[in-house]
Amino acid sequence: MDVIEAVAALRERLAAARRAGGDVGFVPTMGALHAGHAALIERARRECDCTVVSIFVNPLQFDRPDDLEHYPRTLPADLHMCATLGVDVVFAPAAAEMYPAPLSCTIEVGRVASHLCGRYRPGHFNGVATVVMKLFQIVQPDRAYFGEKDAQQLAVIRRVVRDFNVPVRIEPVPTVRERDGLALSSRNQRLDPEERKLAPALYRALCEARRLIAEGADDPERVRQAAIATIPRDQCLRVEYLELVEPDGMQPVERIEGAVLAACALWVGTTRLIDNLMCDSPRARVD
Amino acid sequence: MDVIEAVAALRERLAAARRAGGDVGFVPTMGALHAGHAALIERARRECDCTVVSIFVNPLQFDRPDDLEHYPRTLPADLHMCATLGVDVVFAPAAAEMYPAPLSCTIEVGRVASHLCGRYRPGHFNGVATVVMKLFQIVQPDRAYFGEKDAQQLAVIRRVVRDFNVPVRIEPVPTVRERDGLALSSRNQRLDPEERKLAPALYRALCEARRLIAEGADDPERVRQAAIATIPRDQCLRVEYLELVEPDGMQPVERIEGAVLAACALWVGTTRLIDNLMCDSPRARVD
Repeated sequence: MDVIEAVAALRERLAAARRAGGDVGFVPTMGALHAGHAALIERARRECDCTVVSIFVNPLQFDRPDDLEHYPRTLPADLHMCATLGVDVVFAPAAAEMYPAPLSCTIEVGRVASHLCGRYRPGHFNGVATVVMKLFQIVQPDRAYFGEKDAQQLAVIRRVVRDFNVPVRIEPVPTVRERDGLALSSRNQRLDPEERKLAPALYRALCEARRLIAEGADDPERVRQAAIATIPRDQCLRVEYLELVEPDGMQPVERIEGAVLAACALWVGTTRLIDNLMCDSPRARVD
Repeated sequence: MDVIEAVAALRERLAAARRAGGDVGFVPTMGALHAGHAALIERARRECDCTVVSIFVNPLQFDRPDDLEHYPRTLPADLHMCATLGVDVVFAPAAAEMYPAPLSCTIEVGRVASHLCGRYRPGHFNGVATVVMKLFQIVQPDRAYFGEKDAQQLAVIRRVVRDFNVPVRIEPVPTVRERDGLALSSRNQRLDPEERKLAPALYRALCEARRLIAEGADDPERVRQAAIATIPRDQCLRVEYLELVEPDGMQPVERIEGAVLAACALWVGTTRLIDNLMCDSPRARVD
């Protein structure tokens, strides 16, 4: 496995891979790798001839300085996991390699970022879209793998790819969960044992929304309230949002029909967790 | 010469060219081709194995609807010129092929667009940057050719390429002029004979700025005023801006030293013309 820090060296390495005629698969990460990332990497390994994992904690996408500061960094363990999984190349640039000078041009994400995390984290998805576009230009992958846990991020990346005609196939990978339903996330490391016990309330609230929708509930406000009501009243827990949105445009639905995404952000102590579930309504979608 | 309207068909055609091992050279245009475009195409032909010209009047970069409506469209003549010059592929998409749906993501150009045309044409360079990024993703050229006549556009594209690590070499090509100094532009077609006689005032004003700077003038305001004073007082002529800027960042200089770009936009009747000249001061630049 090659660990590369410079853009130019990475390009050289990948040009060789491409000359050998293989597909390049790309898994962009911010490190602190867990079994969710492993699922992305395993898919890339199965489907591509050369698997590239980037590890870069992107300052541009953090709206709160303390979140950036406390974001877990576990590079030696990350490299070990990548090697074990058979990754071909790890791209682990320093911030100065990705941003040698302040950017003059960035991607402005419109409507798809107007709700959910986009509403509560100003600039976050502009930062995500900008760094992912940079990474796509650097790696030029045939396929790129993103977890469904970050559903709005996936929707944003799909829009970037479509709006700018980026020649890459976006491959969504299902969320990996702990036995109690908690979605794997690098941020779970920051939960203390008490908070860890409370955290699955997020998944259970989404399951309640899914259950009501499967039974035919069609009023998003009633489903929202019923789902939120399952979350224990605890001073450690604060719901930032729980919304029912259409899965492509990420806009709240006025009536539940067809496929709807239930998405939630829950603060557990000082840690912000997000999760989502695709819900199928028995009511046919009328377009 | 292949004339292609669909993104997918173009990609297929260029994949074949790339498999043959050649460099792809790209000349993005809005059509109404003239000898200035011919100079871009000839450079591409000399330096690349496959030359692609795009002809697309990009609605996104027009700040005034009447300018978009009256922009000259001469596709048959354009195709004839491309064939004569030995172009390999013309990409001439309809607006619906480039923008099948309203964009959710666009490029936001910062500081480099804060003066000159960027100041007077709100959104113009965001539209330019966005469509050029799309075209770069579609064509994936090794080199792309841009005229120095549109100096700020060139500076914006260089920033897009640098900020997003786009794997393309930007090749600037010197401005082509009529015998009386008027820079070639598709918009020159819209001048009536009387306006055409007045139009070289633009070039002459820039020459005056260059002369004064070569003689050691260091006060940008005095040079500006002296250059503007050369423009005849005629009700047909209106100076939009005449500025002295540093050539990379396109910011007005406070003192003239080293290389400075003199740039001007002049309204001639209802037609807006732009031009620029690189000026060398005998005063050494102090950084």
